[in-house]
Amino acid sequence: MCGVCGVFNSESAAIYIHAGLFALQHRGREGAGIATHDGENINIKKGLGLVQTLFSDEKSLEGLEGRIAIGGNRYSTVHKYGPECTQPMTFMFEGDQQIATVHNGNITNFEQLRRELQAEKALFQTNVDSELFGVLINQTEGTTLQEKIKRSFPRLIGAYSIIIMTGNEIIGVRDPWGFRPLKLAKINDTYMLASETSAFDILKDEGTVKLEELGSVKPGGIVTINDSGVSYDSLPNTETHAKCIFEYIYFAKPDSRVNGHDISGIRKNYGAQLAREWPVQDADVVIAVPDSGNSAAIGYAQESGIKFDEGLIRNHHAGRTFIESKNDSRKRSIRRKFNPTRSVVEDKKLVVVDDSIVRGNTTERITKMLYDAGAKEVHIRIASPPITSPCYYGIDFRTHEELLVNRLGITSVEADIHKIEQHLGVDSLRYLSLKGMLEVSPQNDYCTACFTGKYPTQTAF
Amino acid sequence: MCGVCGVFNSESAAIYIHAGLFALQHRGREGAGIATHDGENINIKKGLGLVQTLFSDEKSLEGLEGRIAIGGNRYSTVHKYGPECTQPMTFMFEGDQQIATVHNGNITNFEQLRRELQAEKALFQTNVDSELFGVLINQTEGTTLQEKIKRSFPRLIGAYSIIIMTGNEIIGVRDPWGFRPLKLAKINDTYMLASETSAFDILKDEGTVKLEELGSVKPGGIVTINDSGVSYDSLPNTETHAKCIFEYIYFAKPDSRVNGHDISGIRKNYGAQLAREWPVQDADVVIAVPDSGNSAAIGYAQESGIKFDEGLIRNHHAGRTFIESKNDSRKRSIRRKFNPTRSVVEDKKLVVVDDSIVRGNTTERITKMLYDAGAKEVHIRIASPPITSPCYYGIDFRTHEELLVNRLGITSVEADIHKIEQHLGVDSLRYLSLKGMLEVSPQNDYCTACFTGKYPTQTAF
Amino acid sequence: MCGVCGVFNSESAAIYIHAGLFALQHRGREGAGIATHDGENINIKKGLGLVQTLFSDEKSLEGLEGRIAIGGNRYSTVHKYGPECTQPMTFMFEGDQQIATVHNGNITNFEQLRRELQAEKALFQTNVDSELFGVLINQTEGTTLQEKIKRSFPRLIGAYSIIIMTGNEIIGVRDPWGFRPLKLAKINDTYMLASETSAFDILKDEGTVKLEELGSVKPGGIVTINDSGVSYDSLPNTETHAKCIFEYIYFAKPDSRVNGHDISGIRKNYGAQLAREWPVQDADVVIAVPDSGNSAAIGYAQESGIKFDEGLIRNHHAGRTFIESKNDSRKRSIRRKFNPTRSVVEDKKLVVVDDSIVRGNTTERITKMLYDAGAKEVHIRIASPPITSPCYYGIDFRTHEELLVNRLGITSVEADIHKIEQHLGVDSLRYLSLKGMLEVSPQNDYCTACFTGKYPTQTAF
Amino acid sequence: MCGVCGVFNSESAAIYIHAGLFALQHRGREGAGIATHDGENINIKKGLGLVQTLFSDEKSLEGLEGRIAIGGNRYSTVHKYGPECTQPMTFMFEGDQQIATVHNGNITNFEQLRRELQAEKALFQTNVDSELFGVLINQTEGTTLQEKIKRSFPRLIGAYSIIIMTGNEIIGVRDPWGFRPLKLAKINDTYMLASETSAFDILKDEGTVKLEELGSVKPGGIVTINDSGVSYDSLPNTETHAKCIFEYIYFAKPDSRVNGHDISGIRKNYGAQLAREWPVQDADVVIAVPDSGNSAAIGYAQESGIKFDEGLIRNHHAGRTFIESKNDSRKRSIRRKFNPTRSVVEDKKLVVVDDSIVRGNTTERITKMLYDAGAKEVHIRIASPPITSPCYYGIDFRTHEELLVNRLGITSVEADIHKIEQHLGVDSLRYLSLKGMLEVSPQNDYCTACFTGKYPTQTAF
Repeated sequence: MCGVCGVFNSESAAIYIHAGLFALQHRGREGAGIATHDGENINIKKGLGLVQTLFSDEKSLEGLEGRIAIGGNRYSTVHKYGPECTQPMTFMFEGDQQIATVHNGNITNFEQLRRELQAEKALFQTNVDSELFGVLINQTEGTTLQEKIKRSFPRLIGAYSIIIMTGNEIIGVRDPWGFRPLKLAKINDTYMLASETSAFDILKDEGTVKLEELGSVKPGGIVTINDSGVSYDSLPNTETHAKCIFEYIYFAKPDSRVNGHDISGIRKNYGAQLAREWPVQDADVVIAVPDSGNSAAIGYAQESGIKFDEGLIRNHHAGRTFIESKNDSRKRSIRRKFNPTRSVVEDKKLVVVDDSIVRGNTTERITKMLYDAGAKEVHIRIASPPITSPCYYGIDFRTHEELLVNRLGITSVEADIHKIEQHLGVDSLRYLSLKGMLEVSPQNDYCTACFTGKYPTQTAF
Repeated sequence: MCGVCGVFNSESAAIYIHAGLFALQHRGREGAGIATHDGENINIKKGLGLVQTLFSDEKSLEGLEGRIAIGGNRYSTVHKYGPECTQPMTFMFEGDQQIATVHNGNITNFEQLRRELQAEKALFQTNVDSELFGVLINQTEGTTLQEKIKRSFPRLIGAYSIIIMTGNEIIGVRDPWGFRPLKLAKINDTYMLASETSAFDILKDEGTVKLEELGSVKPGGIVTINDSGVSYDSLPNTETHAKCIFEYIYFAKPDSRVNGHDISGIRKNYGAQLAREWPVQDADVVIAVPDSGNSAAIGYAQESGIKFDEGLIRNHHAGRTFIESKNDSRKRSIRRKFNPTRSVVEDKKLVVVDDSIVRGNTTERITKMLYDAGAKEVHIRIASPPITSPCYYGIDFRTHEELLVNRLGITSVEADIHKIEQHLGVDSLRYLSLKGMLEVSPQNDYCTACFTGKYPTQTAF
Repeated sequence: MCGVCGVFNSESAAIYIHAGLFALQHRGREGAGIATHDGENINIKKGLGLVQTLFSDEKSLEGLEGRIAIGGNRYSTVHKYGPECTQPMTFMFEGDQQIATVHNGNITNFEQLRRELQAEKALFQTNVDSELFGVLINQTEGTTLQEKIKRSFPRLIGAYSIIIMTGNEIIGVRDPWGFRPLKLAKINDTYMLASETSAFDILKDEGTVKLEELGSVKPGGIVTINDSGVSYDSLPNTETHAKCIFEYIYFAKPDSRVNGHDISGIRKNYGAQLAREWPVQDADVVIAVPDSGNSAAIGYAQESGIKFDEGLIRNHHAGRTFIESKNDSRKRSIRRKFNPTRSVVEDKKLVVVDDSIVRGNTTERITKMLYDAGAKEVHIRIASPPITSPCYYGIDFRTHEELLVNRLGITSVEADIHKIEQHLGVDSLRYLSLKGMLEVSPQNDYCTACFTGKYPTQTAF
Repeated sequence: MCGVCGVFNSESAAIYIHAGLFALQHRGREGAGIATHDGENINIKKGLGLVQTLFSDEKSLEGLEGRIAIGGNRYSTVHKYGPECTQPMTFMFEGDQQIATVHNGNITNFEQLRRELQAEKALFQTNVDSELFGVLINQTEGTTLQEKIKRSFPRLIGAYSIIIMTGNEIIGVRDPWGFRPLKLAKINDTYMLASETSAFDILKDEGTVKLEELGSVKPGGIVTINDSGVSYDSLPNTETHAKCIFEYIYFAKPDSRVNGHDISGIRKNYGAQLAREWPVQDADVVIAVPDSGNSAAIGYAQESGIKFDEGLIRNHHAGRTFIESKNDSRKRSIRRKFNPTRSVVEDKKLVVVDDSIVRGNTTERITKMLYDAGAKEVHIRIASPPITSPCYYGIDFRTHEELLVNRLGITSVEADIHKIEQHLGVDSLRYLSLKGMLEVSPQNDYCTACFTGKYPTQTAF
């Protein structure tokens, strides 16, 4: 995963990007970068680390002049990244035309397409799929960037929401499946593209601003923003949508909005549906695994009438579990991250709600913690279906083997749910049904491959 | 405020301190340090910054050998601190006897006592009150450290929970009023003193451990831990207790426990009492200012029957508001820290619960955010009484002028509550009554000077 | 300027490169990087700063596995560099063939050639001329890398000594003019290419080693080192040599060797010739501007019979004057860098020898210092001719305007030498003649464009 | 060793100290600090590392307001230092009187005196001898600081040149033996105390300045600088001087001056005397071990008539050999530091001059390098006598065992010089005689204990 944003027409373009990247920090903590176009040249600063570490003061933004800017947070998935692979990337076409790109997603036919393009004499410098966009544009005939994009991007299979900056415009492109989000807004006279609406909201307080949300870039959409305003175009064949439902379940910030629905509300719907599907009789209290399970737990509590309480306290100085890159450090993170509140837990029959189970480490350790703190019964309720298949579109579970269900050799979760319960040491464990989840989701055009193994693209991975 | 801990008899003494300081990070983020005694010498590492920054890997603990260790987090209150003023401090007595000390609290007669001691030819090297402990011990006759402590510490007025490390023991001392907490536990064969129980809990997962909580060091208590086990002694005149109730309201971690009550539960009691005192008719939803108001908001919701929901999302990459040291950076922090979830807020009559109001900046800005997000009515409920008087015992509001109530020139909050409501721009604002708060607090021996102006010590500040 | 080196067949390939880059630090202090090929992949670490800062311990070399490695130091000349522009650069051809390159020099037809290549649909990602090598190879047909090099590199005009690493060989290529040096040596069973022989010498002490120098790669030479040993080939049209004589005058380390002559010896010859051309009657002492003028001053003293002494002491904690990138910091550097020894200077008629005058700042300030310290007369002797024309081949004086001679509006240095003397405030100033310099240089195929304005290549700059 | 300086009456007091510390960097590279007095308070910044790293820009000097300032570089000798032990140190007396001190030297009766003072109830906080000054002043009756100093400092045995800053004066005190230097100068209207005159010289270029040197603080001297100007006083019993002659041999910067003699000139005298005592017949060339042997080598060459040349090139990116703190890193430093110039060395009979031999590692490795580079004969000439006894006054050879002469079990260097020659593998090795050295030294009141074992103080070490 990554977070991307772009700004057109602001005296404070780099500062806007900085704020946006800060609001999108949860989408990628391994590196960040900002590029601006000052009319003549692209200026760029990027590196490894958090936004607030890399860009810690006004001085750190020096040199990033210009009214147009883009930026990205990077979250390592497929590739090993060094500083040279962080975003933005730059490319030069037709003499001195410099562009910069930031990309959120994962191209599944990268290797194959790279070979095809190399056969056409295209030059790659790294093994990062984000290079594909520049290469394809360069390789393709056309009088405008948009024309080249429309001709060449259909060769890409997989997830991409990218923003391209030139000397006089920013262009947002979203893959035809719409895997990753891409939002547009107008902030006073400035246009901004970003992965999530929280990147717009953070700007409300940088002075007196008028924020007008202009909705999502559609799957396959190409939005161009320049001095003439906003114009829309589209890639061909954008019928089959496959928006990543895991954005709702886990990835997006709860205060971000999709079609006017905020993520927090969607998650509460999941929790409520979960309560209808899998009630726990005579439970004393519903608690969340904070913060990932907060919204769903509130939804579960509201629907079930069981009181919601805080049974686990999170130490926010420890990083986000899911986002670390080594399994080992994930374990230590859990130890340092949660502590039960005994008064809520002791002698209680608990409903413990979390958003999802990937590897199962967090659930297992938290269960142990709760029993140690005196819980009478622990009933885990997961506000999404069992994950059985890897994600090739940018979420960080990429192998069959790492998934809890597969680690236990389970083919039917329904039939063998007790095996998981036994492994985790819980009184009961239930997952939200896929059908139920989709019923309460705001739309119906999602990628659910991680639950079903039915991938919306035909690539052999 | 500061966090302190000490360990006796562990192969991993420095690692235990490291984990403890991590769990106590919320008590002080400006500096940290660890000292160990290896039988011959004291080894010490300290600096400015967070625990996980200063001690980021195993290598950073190299040189900290020994089975006895102490450590402290520092939170700048009265004094300007450079690295030379971080804790632990070391002192040498009677030839080669080296001791190290860590201190949580604030000595109110520091200046006067320093002058007295200087008149007795005592030498001070900095203007940090933590030096007093070493100076008093050095200045006093006695055959044991404990004897010197008992003879000299009665000269101290104010808040101190300190841990002293020698070559063969650790000694915990708590001021006669008991302003700041100090807890004892046994973890397998190791004894540990710490500001809060969460510092013990974090060790549960560092291998298979048996944790036995041994309660609080009593106000005026002197606890000595050495190869003979634990022995208790006391300073004279420890009748008048004045435990800081602000530890419950705001400072302590919610998962920490006091006499078996966890802080989260106490805060829920405050919230419930607040609901009884100040109900809001026909409110749609109770939301918290996260995370400070979380527990009280849940208590309010449970008591009132109004549903609890998450109306504000906090970006945890921004620091803790209260703990920053400049007013200006506090403002910017608020902007970056919170964002409303529109679905919860829009067209709703909101009850917004927070733990306390000090300067009022956070409340004012959050109110504005909520109205901007479409809130119909905003009713602020504060789970503690109005703060009208500065704290001289270690909490960071030290002047009359900075407090909201005083800034508005209000002498009777009850009579002039509408002035505060008007200033903050809210539909209503109500505070928990002092009487109500004390009724639902676990004990009745608290310092409430910040609400009443009645200071438990006689010092002219 | 830059320093480059490459290693073939060593268990310690990255360590060898590290030592080599350290020995070549004087050739570029703005950035450094190391790439290794482990048989499957290229591993790379690079960044901004000194070698010993970037690669400060063994841990910093972790991940750089492989028996083949290259590395480079970067010295900013034409382009503004960010970390993404440091060396080595990587490229991918024909599926998975990864290569890495390091480059010392400056391609003068970069802009024009880039446009031509872009017209052929080549893709550039930055505005660093070092990308040209990868692009040309990719753009060119051929069954081997060497074949592609021979076909495409003749399009390059300017200075380049580059080393290319593949999965099974390193290839060194030197431009047909031979502007920049490139040396080969065998160290036990390992082959090493490097800008200067001092990069070989430093390895003598890394255990028991046998060092066999294999001379320079010839102008236009292509040397390939793989499991079959060393093989030589050549670019076409390598008749017109134009080796940079400024390498001898200033840039190379004095202990480096050219055709068996060490640079120190060549500089002493210049100093001796200078003494013959421009003696100073009755001078008391010859002093050097350390360290740039050391060798020439010794040569002058030996030839003239005037005693050599140390009249200026250099503070080595201040950086190398010439190598900083802003004129302003250069001035401050001079203040902090030199101090006269009064006993040598006071009441003395001084001959002050330096290697060259570019902007004149150092000379002017040193002269003032010497008079302040009591010098009776200051006679500056410069061991190279007046610099009147910019260098486009990699030395850092790139504009006509910055050169002292041009700043003073002088067209004939010979006729107007008193103007320079007056400007610098010296008793006399004399330069070594071009003729004299060439007579005592080891060969006769040099680029002297900076003295004559006659550039060996036809590019319009 | 350490470098100290103090400034009275400058708008740029901290900047002056910064420049002074930079010029004195060679006296201590492990830590540095600056303290200023702004009339009300002492401001202080200090840490581990080089001056230019700790104080890298104007921002780093922020907060250091005031017209009075002192600073120090620290060079670890006896004690293990953490950041808390770097200089300046601060002390408080008589209410709010704050002083700060910087100290160059080593108190040999530290342990014993500390015990005595502890018996008098004095409090020490670290095991750094620099605390003694504050303790003694505090412990002593008197109406002025100067009076207390005169009464108490006679209890100190050993080396100390200290500068004390109060709110309205700086006071320099030099121990009665005069082990370490301390110089005074007037720069326009500002007074400055510093370890060496090079700290004054560096300020000449910070604008238009008039520098008036006011000579050395005398052994036992107390110089007070305040608004009334400079006043002089003295400790009792200052008859027996014992100035450290190793300052001349090795430690001081060559451009520093003593009684008008610059160090470079003194070292040349040693070299010349060495040439008279130990000529080498038919030698081809005299070379220095740079930079420590530079001056003496020039002196040797001038006296002997043998030509001086540069046979070893030093890589200044490697640190100063002598100043590192671990023997192992010293070895690696030598490898990286020197490289011979073959043209000077090959087939030559060499006279190699260095300032001194402590452990012998450098000499041994350099000799090997020179033979490897083709030297026919290597004749080492050392411009000081054999070091046979440790230094307890601040120079970093503190044990009998580490010294080359003792490692080889030699009792009479004269008789057994061939053993050293054999060990080092040289054709000949000769040391300057003590008598000869003293004859050509500017005065005759030196400590030569490291050569003779006759210590000027009576302490049992």
